[in-house]
Amino acid sequence: MSYESRIRLPELLNRVTSADAAAGWIRDGMVVGMSGFTRAGDAKAVPLALAERARREPLKITLMTGASLGSDIDRTLAEAGAIARRMPFQADPTLRAAINRGEVMFIDHHLSETVELLRTRQIPPIDIAVIEAVAITETGAIVPTTSIGNSASFAILADKVIVEINMTQSAALEGLHDIFIPKHRPQREPMPLMTPYDRIGTTAIEIPPEKIVAIVITDKADSTSNVLPADAETAAIAGHLVEFFEREVAQGRLTERLLPLQAGIGTVANAVMSGLGAGPFRHLSMYSEVLQDSTFDLFDAGKLDFASGSSITLSPARAAQVFGNLDAYKDRLVLRTQEVSNHPEIIRRLGIIALNTALEADIYGNVNSTHVLGTHMMNGIGGSGDFARNAYLSIFATKSVAKGGAVSSIVPMVSHVDHIPQDVDILVTEVGLADLRGLAPRERAHAIIENCTAQPYRDMLRAYYEEAVATRGGQTPHVLEKALSWHLRYRDTGTMLG
Amino acid sequence: MSYESRIRLPELLNRVTSADAAAGWIRDGMVVGMSGFTRAGDAKAVPLALAERARREPLKITLMTGASLGSDIDRTLAEAGAIARRMPFQADPTLRAAINRGEVMFIDHHLSETVELLRTRQIPPIDIAVIEAVAITETGAIVPTTSIGNSASFAILADKVIVEINMTQSAALEGLHDIFIPKHRPQREPMPLMTPYDRIGTTAIEIPPEKIVAIVITDKADSTSNVLPADAETAAIAGHLVEFFEREVAQGRLTERLLPLQAGIGTVANAVMSGLGAGPFRHLSMYSEVLQDSTFDLFDAGKLDFASGSSITLSPARAAQVFGNLDAYKDRLVLRTQEVSNHPEIIRRLGIIALNTALEADIYGNVNSTHVLGTHMMNGIGGSGDFARNAYLSIFATKSVAKGGAVSSIVPMVSHVDHIPQDVDILVTEVGLADLRGLAPRERAHAIIENCTAQPYRDMLRAYYEEAVATRGGQTPHVLEKALSWHLRYRDTGTMLG
Repeated sequence: MSYESRIRLPELLNRVTSADAAAGWIRDGMVVGMSGFTRAGDAKAVPLALAERARREPLKITLMTGASLGSDIDRTLAEAGAIARRMPFQADPTLRAAINRGEVMFIDHHLSETVELLRTRQIPPIDIAVIEAVAITETGAIVPTTSIGNSASFAILADKVIVEINMTQSAALEGLHDIFIPKHRPQREPMPLMTPYDRIGTTAIEIPPEKIVAIVITDKADSTSNVLPADAETAAIAGHLVEFFEREVAQGRLTERLLPLQAGIGTVANAVMSGLGAGPFRHLSMYSEVLQDSTFDLFDAGKLDFASGSSITLSPARAAQVFGNLDAYKDRLVLRTQEVSNHPEIIRRLGIIALNTALEADIYGNVNSTHVLGTHMMNGIGGSGDFARNAYLSIFATKSVAKGGAVSSIVPMVSHVDHIPQDVDILVTEVGLADLRGLAPRERAHAIIENCTAQPYRDMLRAYYEEAVATRGGQTPHVLEKALSWHLRYRDTGTMLG
Repeated sequence: MSYESRIRLPELLNRVTSADAAAGWIRDGMVVGMSGFTRAGDAKAVPLALAERARREPLKITLMTGASLGSDIDRTLAEAGAIARRMPFQADPTLRAAINRGEVMFIDHHLSETVELLRTRQIPPIDIAVIEAVAITETGAIVPTTSIGNSASFAILADKVIVEINMTQSAALEGLHDIFIPKHRPQREPMPLMTPYDRIGTTAIEIPPEKIVAIVITDKADSTSNVLPADAETAAIAGHLVEFFEREVAQGRLTERLLPLQAGIGTVANAVMSGLGAGPFRHLSMYSEVLQDSTFDLFDAGKLDFASGSSITLSPARAAQVFGNLDAYKDRLVLRTQEVSNHPEIIRRLGIIALNTALEADIYGNVNSTHVLGTHMMNGIGGSGDFARNAYLSIFATKSVAKGGAVSSIVPMVSHVDHIPQDVDILVTEVGLADLRGLAPRERAHAIIENCTAQPYRDMLRAYYEEAVATRGGQTPHVLEKALSWHLRYRDTGTMLG
């Protein structure tokens, strides 16, 4: 199949050019919006050509994406010193190191909010968008690939658009997308979406075709998922959640369909979602950001009726199977803009059950999702704040210890707060599950310490809490001079064990 | 005017009884939902009769309200030991002390969420509701008084309802309310509200009249507002915000109408809202929780077109003027359930400009709204989380110092987090305003320290931040061993000054 058949508006054929030439449109100081969400659907050729140029000439950009990129793009651009500012999410070790050295300014948004800020010009405008596509339609509309993310608004808001037609992306992706752009406020109307499977928009990004200044033909596959397989701990976490949901069904609070499920990216959430397949649930649905292997595990187990996301990111074997036979799944899938997948309005209306992962949590159920030892950025808050605040039920999962036991994931006080106790209904580790609904802080502490922690940290947390109650009291007892002492001990001695 | 004319369903006249007799329906261990939001529209006679009984017999209840109560109800019930559990908000010193001693379990909700949790039975159900009313209609529907709060869902979800007909509340309040009850999920539909002045519900709480087991006639006025008048600092804060909004208008991001305004309860927010009257803005609207004196100041200044709230809480003079002549304002006012006034869907759709107050903020723009020295509850998060997360623009205001300068409101690290940096766009003190939109944490620190803080705390914060950058670095530099040292110094020496 030739690329010409994927550029269905003939007048655009003469825009086909090299990645180097296309990258020439990007100049020092520009704000560049690129496709890409959880390693899926990222523009792959132009950013690497840009990095090459940045090694030879002064060139620093503000880079905005949907979420994390694959294909070593963030790494290569960071190594070339080409990124001055980055938003709203990243997950690359090299870029992360530059961020933590203070060399790259990283602005960590709720994933639903970036385009609202752009649309209202509360952050600097996009100069140019670089969007991966499977095709350009007869009217010049861009058909995205394995993610939408912020691509639609980037293309709509930018003056100029570069399209990368990726020949390795299945042409069957066309039709999968649902692109809805809300009106400016105060003219905004209700979003007419009432179930995970409603379609409310178009299947391609509609822009004036004259904005497309360059088209680059590429043939590099998406990076595959780097999540690890399920293990004994993630299986135990899934088991606790299956038991919890079974009780909710028995008590009539949920049906066997549960409510639409969201799962954060990563090993724990993916393994736990797959584990739900072992429960007595049927006709499940997902309304999530990234669709991972677990989505297709649940489809294949006959448990899942429908999945809505903003991207599809799979392991190598799953990617080959799914994208090689997309028609087998296509009528049960939709990809949306991240503004819609993560919209507070929709999350609250649908009554989402949200499952996100914690880097650490404290005895009151504050959750740190982002900052190691309170200072060093891991990836970003992503969509977890969109979902946790507005969900029917907000679940956070983590293994109870890390670093071979040298780190307790449950600490007296988290060193950085991403999620406050009001937004954390359930905390679950391999040890057990704490149902925090309707509990006051002192009751939350008891539930978390007794249900979610392993020895010797359980005794250490009991001792901290008892000292806090005895010496300070209050709604949320703490011994402030010791609240962060576990982190300091880990920093100084390599272990939180006293 | 006799009470009989306020009970328009004749068969209910024989339910009129004494407060003591009505309180007899409430038994030890019950969950009681009472009207009342920001000292307005609280049931006044039955809770005090209940407190009297609790002094003579074992009687402890779970007390749920809209928000804070007036009329010494929380104090009297707390003194009588009648409150085992309390949600979702309070502002009484005696109750607060009992909470901080761990004697009362206080569950501090986002104000929009309490009825969602009740409706889905994720918290124990309401046994009985006690609702203040101006009237009961021909069909037995309850017309609330100066607040709605959670009253509608309490009455709908409870098995039994006690109504207090308050003869001092203006009969003209009837017609002011707009009561909309969303459907259970997954049948929930979009909320059909597109402007602050849309009416989408009924003017009274419709319940089967046989649920009304007792009616008590009362004649005690609402407690009036306890906010302090504007002072030099609040005037300066208002001035900084007026300048900021003028710049936003000049840059075309807002019009002279701005966008619908929300203002948190209290002295600072009230004074700042009044101060907006000095700006060149016209045809303003409010979509807020509590309507305070400032709302009527702006009406009288010809600046405000319409105000939507869940309660009206005024100073004595304003209360006499407004409620004595409600018809002069009535067509520009609506009172809604707090689920609607604070709904994420509506806040995001309307593009609210949210103004809330901080107890303390840190150099990165985390805000503590609730916990003194990280442990002791002040009032609760209230609706600030509903608004700050979903607003077009989220502003937090505070005076830069408290306790005569012994406390800096800007600290290295807040001792408790209610609002994360992603939800804090603008921080303003009497010193100045920090526009944090689109900034990374290191840039936020610079903006906050240089714009919002006064000496000698400014130099102290600079020194802390520089040490954090030099010794630890990271996305969000901190010196963990010193991060909470200002709070400890205040606790131990009575001042944060080193």
